[in-house]
Amino acid sequence: MRDFLPDDVRRREYVVGVVRRVYERFGFEPIETPAVENIETLLGKYGEEGNQLIFKILKRGVHEGSGEADLALRYDLTVPLARVVAEHRAKLPRLFKRCQIQPVWRADRPARGRFREFYQCDVDTLGSTSPVVEAEQCAAVSEVLAELGFGDFRIRVNDRRLLTSMLAGAGVPAALHDGALVALDKLDRLGPDGVGAELEQRGVPPGARERLLAVHAEHGGGDSASGVAGALAALAAAGSRVADVTPAGVEARESLRVVLELTRDTAAAPRVAYDPFLARGLSYYTGAIMEINVPDLAGSLGGGGRYDNLVGMFSGDTVPACGFSLGLERILVVMEERGMFPASLPSAPADVMTAVFRPEDLGHALRLAHVLRQSGLRVLVYPDADKMGKQIKYASSRGIPCVAILGEDEIGRGEVTVKDLASGRQETLAERGAGAAVKAMLGEGRG
Amino acid sequence: MRDFLPDDVRRREYVVGVVRRVYERFGFEPIETPAVENIETLLGKYGEEGNQLIFKILKRGVHEGSGEADLALRYDLTVPLARVVAEHRAKLPRLFKRCQIQPVWRADRPARGRFREFYQCDVDTLGSTSPVVEAEQCAAVSEVLAELGFGDFRIRVNDRRLLTSMLAGAGVPAALHDGALVALDKLDRLGPDGVGAELEQRGVPPGARERLLAVHAEHGGGDSASGVAGALAALAAAGSRVADVTPAGVEARESLRVVLELTRDTAAAPRVAYDPFLARGLSYYTGAIMEINVPDLAGSLGGGGRYDNLVGMFSGDTVPACGFSLGLERILVVMEERGMFPASLPSAPADVMTAVFRPEDLGHALRLAHVLRQSGLRVLVYPDADKMGKQIKYASSRGIPCVAILGEDEIGRGEVTVKDLASGRQETLAERGAGAAVKAMLGEGRG
Repeated sequence: MRDFLPDDVRRREYVVGVVRRVYERFGFEPIETPAVENIETLLGKYGEEGNQLIFKILKRGVHEGSGEADLALRYDLTVPLARVVAEHRAKLPRLFKRCQIQPVWRADRPARGRFREFYQCDVDTLGSTSPVVEAEQCAAVSEVLAELGFGDFRIRVNDRRLLTSMLAGAGVPAALHDGALVALDKLDRLGPDGVGAELEQRGVPPGARERLLAVHAEHGGGDSASGVAGALAALAAAGSRVADVTPAGVEARESLRVVLELTRDTAAAPRVAYDPFLARGLSYYTGAIMEINVPDLAGSLGGGGRYDNLVGMFSGDTVPACGFSLGLERILVVMEERGMFPASLPSAPADVMTAVFRPEDLGHALRLAHVLRQSGLRVLVYPDADKMGKQIKYASSRGIPCVAILGEDEIGRGEVTVKDLASGRQETLAERGAGAAVKAMLGEGRG
Repeated sequence: MRDFLPDDVRRREYVVGVVRRVYERFGFEPIETPAVENIETLLGKYGEEGNQLIFKILKRGVHEGSGEADLALRYDLTVPLARVVAEHRAKLPRLFKRCQIQPVWRADRPARGRFREFYQCDVDTLGSTSPVVEAEQCAAVSEVLAELGFGDFRIRVNDRRLLTSMLAGAGVPAALHDGALVALDKLDRLGPDGVGAELEQRGVPPGARERLLAVHAEHGGGDSASGVAGALAALAAAGSRVADVTPAGVEARESLRVVLELTRDTAAAPRVAYDPFLARGLSYYTGAIMEINVPDLAGSLGGGGRYDNLVGMFSGDTVPACGFSLGLERILVVMEERGMFPASLPSAPADVMTAVFRPEDLGHALRLAHVLRQSGLRVLVYPDADKMGKQIKYASSRGIPCVAILGEDEIGRGEVTVKDLASGRQETLAERGAGAAVKAMLGEGRG
């Protein structure tokens, strides 16, 4: 887990600001949930591996010695949302679009763009089975990434039911489906041979293995070209080996087709691709699944899918739901490496610093700062009457563009000397004109 | 710990936005630290009671069964800051003003305005012993509260060294100082008699008890009138029983006098008061201490003080420091009860909702939404072709002011019907004019 110093925070907030603005443009409303959940809420929702990555909190007080945990740190934002919807149902609208940008914690091995504390930026729509939901979420995350300057991301889509249908068609016994999906999820990393070996290890019969890898070869080694047209063509070709095996497969292909069609006039249109092997790890997905990638990051920038049964695990009521999550740290690591942050991000702590020669003038500096702040300027009062050279050096080293110097003579005349550190130019003027003078200097610096 | 639904989040973000803007105007730079710290970092920093209120996290993996905790949830933002300063010293400026707005966790009994997860809004200045630091922090929090609409808060100030001096002067043995301070801290709640009884319980000799309560009576039963002049007068009167006992007491009175003088031309001027009994719980304070109260809340809205030795506990280097913390939940509970939130806070999920009669027109709705969003509007696409009455009822129940209706005929003509739900007025116009029409309706609604 990491500390974020001011420049880090400014970059993070810039990205979060874009995410938030776009999400709200799509009608997603913000909620927040506690960092800590009851441990039962989380256990059993993320698969066996997930259970082990949950940070567990000791019971307090006299129970502390028992070593028992009753609470746990939030592992994702989806399970807490399902709990919130079950718990606050009466206060929430029937159709509920929410966004949530908060940290989650996983006791995972850190890697590039992977940390034990990281922020998820989620949109979820509760209460609708319409394919508009999936299409809009693809559109929203596409607008986020486009606004941040990404031009090369792809959103691969698939449907959990198509995966099941494909596995059934290949002859993988139902009991081995989960394991087979874990293996197929590694096609990008291990290639067909590696995955074939893992399928064998997991007990998938040779014929089934061959048939699965034949689908892979048929689909040009994986996902389709990007863009609605290519995705639709590839999906249409997902015939006898993938969709046309079970009625659920046929239905899933049709619903995925409609999702893709609906993205046609959105920012997602050039981004979508069909990948018959996209599996996504989490066990709660029931329909469409999505994942965003860029070429220069091994993991994904985000992903999501439909999970129509999760709320029911908390309330008994079935509430259809679908969500998409962007990983803040993943986005940041790529933006950092590509140098994608705008040059206009502020990096100085203030627009102007006040400086005095004598300790007894510090009160005067505070008064001037008060006036300058009222005009909207960010002002740092240098707190000591150090040597003027030392004070100006501090301002300069911090990137503060102007210094307002209050000397004895200036104070006597109600004046102040405003110095532009970049040009070295300075002017002495009435204190009431200082704000305008600083703003003029800032304007020049920017121009 | 609580869930925050959209209206809660909007109120919280409004307050955080004001806090953040004011803090940055004063030159405080944002940092963020992890929710989780090594347990050794936190233990022993908050006193015995504090240790017990820390949420502790079980070791992971094979060590889980041991019941041992190696991590803990952040208990405040000050100790993590001291760790950050010790750890990242080389990357930080010599004079470092930072703000931090993040949650902390305490396993405390919940009460009005007190929760187990709550946000602190902190400003701290590292690297200066100047009284300008304290004065500016009082000014900054005063501007925050004034901007939020508080007109009746007071900032009581004192100095840890004056407390020590007063206790010594009263004849309290040094070993009983901590306990005596805990008792004196309850003067507001228990009154002189109750505190006298507690001092007796804690072993403070009768003569010392009498002398302490005599100081209380001398100071008019507690703190001075608000305002620099009153505070200075009361402080000057803190003579033979309080300051003039030890050289450190005399020095502390002088430095507190300068702090108060420096607030004279800031937003804190009418707010400050001197309270010889203000003690503050945390053990790391070394100099000035401050606390903000309003009449209708038993606890404080915030507080802080100088802690010149805390960074040294992590690095060996002494780094002078002083901080002020506002409690977000305390502020919110008072604002809620007093109805202080601006009427202009948004509460609808969108400015306009699209509605269609036929499922095959949903793609068209997504296209229109895309165009409207590009013009800056927040748009909710109703995801199903439900009966129009049901759709409009949904918009109305959510407070969405306009609906853009795409009927078969309208679509054929490239038109859309924009309906203002408040007035019931509607007009059918070319799709490209829809954004302007919606904005005109929003403008009227506001006017």
